[in-house]
This record gives sequence, structure tokens and C-alpha cells, in this order.
Amino acid sequence: MHKLIPGELENELKILDDELKRGIHTKIHLINKPLFEMVGAGGKRLRPVLVLASARFGRYDFEKTKPLAVAVELIHTATLVHDDIVDDSPLRRGIPSIQARLGKDVAVFAGDFIFCKVFELLTSMNNLDILRRISRVMYKICEGEMKQREDLYNTDVTFRNYVCRIQRKTALLFGLSCELGAASCGAHIKVVRALNQYGVKLGIAFQLIDDLLDVTCDEYDIGKPGGADIREGVITLPVIYALQKSLQKDELRYILQKQKQTVKDTETALEIVRDSGGVEYTRWLAGRYVEKAAGFLKNLPDIPMKKVLANIAEYIYNRKN
Amino acid sequence: MHKLIPGELENELKILDDELKRGIHTKIHLINKPLFEMVGAGGKRLRPVLVLASARFGRYDFEKTKPLAVAVELIHTATLVHDDIVDDSPLRRGIPSIQARLGKDVAVFAGDFIFCKVFELLTSMNNLDILRRISRVMYKICEGEMKQREDLYNTDVTFRNYVCRIQRKTALLFGLSCELGAASCGAHIKVVRALNQYGVKLGIAFQLIDDLLDVTCDEYDIGKPGGADIREGVITLPVIYALQKSLQKDELRYILQKQKQTVKDTETALEIVRDSGGVEYTRWLAGRYVEKAAGFLKNLPDIPMKKVLANIAEYIYNRKN
Repeated sequence: MHKLIPGELENELKILDDELKRGIHTKIHLINKPLFEMVGAGGKRLRPVLVLASARFGRYDFEKTKPLAVAVELIHTATLVHDDIVDDSPLRRGIPSIQARLGKDVAVFAGDFIFCKVFELLTSMNNLDILRRISRVMYKICEGEMKQREDLYNTDVTFRNYVCRIQRKTALLFGLSCELGAASCGAHIKVVRALNQYGVKLGIAFQLIDDLLDVTCDEYDIGKPGGADIREGVITLPVIYALQKSLQKDELRYILQKQKQTVKDTETALEIVRDSGGVEYTRWLAGRYVEKAAGFLKNLPDIPMKKVLANIAEYIYNRKN
Repeated sequence: MHKLIPGELENELKILDDELKRGIHTKIHLINKPLFEMVGAGGKRLRPVLVLASARFGRYDFEKTKPLAVAVELIHTATLVHDDIVDDSPLRRGIPSIQARLGKDVAVFAGDFIFCKVFELLTSMNNLDILRRISRVMYKICEGEMKQREDLYNTDVTFRNYVCRIQRKTALLFGLSCELGAASCGAHIKVVRALNQYGVKLGIAFQLIDDLLDVTCDEYDIGKPGGADIREGVITLPVIYALQKSLQKDELRYILQKQKQTVKDTETALEIVRDSGGVEYTRWLAGRYVEKAAGFLKNLPDIPMKKVLANIAEYIYNRKN
């Protein structure tokens, strides 16, 4: 990912690392070091990159854009802390997750704390318009997460339902990142809207690939056991496709509805999904969304960052982890 | 509690009930009804009452004040949803808690959802000053909750440490409620400050009585088994007092440091605390804070709501649940 980013943006990301750590600083020792390390461990910083790159389509001002890049990364971090509680994840970004280190109880409040710090950071920006844009997206993200819980083990979940869920859970924050960057530097409203749409389509492609990697990861090795979604009852697109098209769809449905699958169950389900063409279909659809995203860049001014955004879309399509 | 409240305020609380339900409405069916019922089940509505009463010290306008009364109650509700995860509580307000009904996983996101809806509600008010006041308090509440986790099973926790913790965890939201009410209706800055201080002192008294009831509740019956704090390792003031003054302080310390107490352990600890004078001391201190709260009312204009606020302080001192 970082090969795609010009040096100028790379330097800004380094400054952002310090800001992120400052953003979550607390006098509560219990949580300060683990949060510090989690933020320090990185991740792709995709959302801040989208903010910083999109801001170039306005009258670029790093100081104006910086708190927004920090905010979207911290919103993402807070959802990760809470996701790890729900998924019982031992690791995050290659280090022990907050819930693994300090228990689920502390992790609940640690996530809340990050959300509240974002809120504080944003109010200090004195920009109600930006606050409104962010607040609208934040509660939709929560709705997306709850929708995922609601649809657990539901083998009747529709394609439409799935796309709506991943849009809320993942894509809106991508869209928001682009939109905020552009809006903060006074880009034209048409540019802001196009960048938002680019981000949303990109986010959907990102999640499609994520869901695909969970099915194929035996082949690609993403550093975690495959089939986590299937095991936990999260019905994703490759699976929805198999539930409709596979000759073994009844067996698949039977396994997916089990609240406790055996290792053999999950392996069988994975095989059925892989054999169904669901993986190829999901990759094809991700490609369509990447094209849609690129389409929204077409009418934007030809600045160097336009190429960076196009490359990010390509990267997301081809990523292996 | 509701005997203390004049009819005019009682009517406003009824309107507020509908607003609270509207505030947490979501299309996610899984969570909509449980949240609806939790908000509908009531509770004391102490924080909204403080907002509405304090607003009378300015040029009272219900429409301006209403969203703030909704916001503080929803902030409180969100912390309850997350508290119940941590405490593994089966009940809340006499009905099954969100975590008991839908599991801890959904409860994590349900609490987040309420926080985000508060944020959205507040941004629609177009008042940055108020947003700033609220955001500052919200993250301190989270810090208070985390501080409580940090101090778990720590028998060396000091009096000062304890007061600082309950101030963040409980009292700041009481102070904020009063402050917001007064500020929203343009009360004089001195009045806003005095009401904030009244609220903070009141909140400390409230938590002191809460912590005391957990020790004495065999006698008073608050509808839950006594000694929950002791069992869970939460060291409160009656216990801190006993750890310093009781002749059996070594035995008490030994029990409190156990991560798994037997029923007999908890009963012995409760007896030691009750015999130590810790209960009387805590009640005395709560009385001092109620007096301090009342002191801040002294110089306020003599409007009918002043008497209501004084009565609320008395009620908090004498409450049995």
C-alpha cells in the first residue's frame, strides 16, 4: 500500500502518527499504554490517506485537514476495539487486542473513550457542518454492525441486504473520509460529492475483497485461519452466491444454520463455497465497484492525487491481506 | 422522587418520554424494541429533571431545553447498556437488560448506537458551545469507568482516589445537566457555574448513597443481592473506611483481594464493613455533600425551582433505592 503514496503524503502520515497518539492520551495508566501501542501498530491508514489525498482537490491546508484524518482513523480504531470484543479476537494489527490484554470489560469502555475523544477533537474544530456529516455516518456504522448481528446464521439474507449492510459497516466511512478531506479545504460541492461516491464504491469493493479473502485465505494466507465468517454465522457474498447456485446448497444451508460447527463442518462449507463460483463472482463484483469508484474520479481536476486515488482502487482490488 | 416535582415539570417529562423513544429509533428491528422498552421503563429521570429545573434560572424555553434533557438521559442510558455488559446484569429498571436479552455482542453496538444518536441530536442543535461542554464531560465519564476497572481489587485505593473516580463516573453528568439547562436559556454565567457546582456535589452524594446501599441493602432491600461491589472487587467508601479503621481490617483485605469470593467470604466482608462504622461515615459524608450542594443554591434567584432543587438534594440523601 505505502508504495502507492507519494513522499509528501508519507511525511504527513508520520506527523499523524504522533497526533493519533496524542488524541487518545489519558491519565488512566491501565489503558493508556495498550491504546498507544494499538494506534502505533499502524494498520494501512487507508482512511487518513483518503482524507489527505481528497483535500488536495481544494485549497490544501494540512493543519485544517489533520484533525479530520485523525478523527476518521480513531473512529475506525474504536470500532476495531469493539469488534474484537464481539469476535473474541486475540490479535489486532499483529499485537494482542485490547480485549485480549485487558479483558472485554475494559475494552468496552476503552472503545467508548476513543469515540468520546473523537467527539471532543471534532468540537474543538468549530465546524458544525463537518460535525453533522460525521455524526450522520457514525450512527449508521453502528446500525451496520447491529444489522450484521441481526443477520447472523440467516441463510435467507439477500444480495441487496448484504450490500446495504457492508455499505453502512464499512463503505460510508470511506466515503466520509474523502468527503471530509475535500470539504475541509473548500473544494467545489460537485467535487466533494464525486469524492464521497468514489469513497463509498471503494469501501464496498474493500469489504467484498475482505469477505472473499476470508473464504480463500487457505490459498492466500492472510495470517489467520480461514472461514472465520462462516464459523461465526456471518453470511457474506461468496456464501450467498453458493446458497443460490451450488448443487450442494442444501448441505451448505444446513451447516450455516448450526450455531456450533465442527472443524469438518466449516471445511466442508468452505469447499462448497469455493466450488460454487462464489469467489469468482465476488471478485468480479469487487472489480465492478472499483470501476465505479474510478468512474467518479473521471471528471475531477487532473492533479497528481487523482492518480494516487486511482492506484488505491487498484490496490484494493488486488490486495492479498 | 416524583412527588417532589411540580405538575408543570411532570408534564414536560411525559413529552420527554416520547422524545427519548424517537431519539433512539432505528430501522434495525433486532435492537429497536429492546431499546424502546428500556427507555420506556423509566428510571428516575433525575438528569432530565436537573436540566429542566435549572433552565428556569434563565429565560425558560422548553423547546431549547428539551434536546439537552434528552441528550443527558441518553448518555446515561448508553453508559447503563455498557455497564450491564461489564457487570453481567440480568436486570435493568426491572426488565431484562439489553445484554441479557440480546447478548453482550449486540449490547456493545447498541450502547455505541445510543452514543452516536446523542452526537447526531446535539449537532442538529447548532450550538458549538454546548457540544464542547458535553464532549469534555463524556470522555471523563469513560475515564471514570476505566479508573474503576483499574482500581478493582486494589485495597490500597485512597479516599482521594475514590472521590475523584465517582466524580468522573457519576457527578460530572449531574453537574453538566444543571449547567446545560441554565446555559441553554441564557442564565448568567455565575448562575450557570453555581448550578454546575450544585450538580457535581449532588452527584457525589448520589454515588456515596449508592455505594452505601450496596453494603446495607440486606436491611433496606433495593431489589438486588447485597455486596455486589465487594464481590466484584469494586472498593467503595464504606470499605475504604473499614480497611483503615476496623480491627478486622487484615481479614477484610484478604477477602477483598480474592478474585473469587465464596458466599461466606462476601458475607463476612459485609459484616466487617457494617461493624466498622463505614456506613455511618459514608452517610455523614453524603450529608456533607448535600449541604455543599444546597450551599451553591443559596445565592441563586428565589424562583420556585430553587426549592425543587433543594428537595431533590434531600431526597437523594434519604433515598432507599
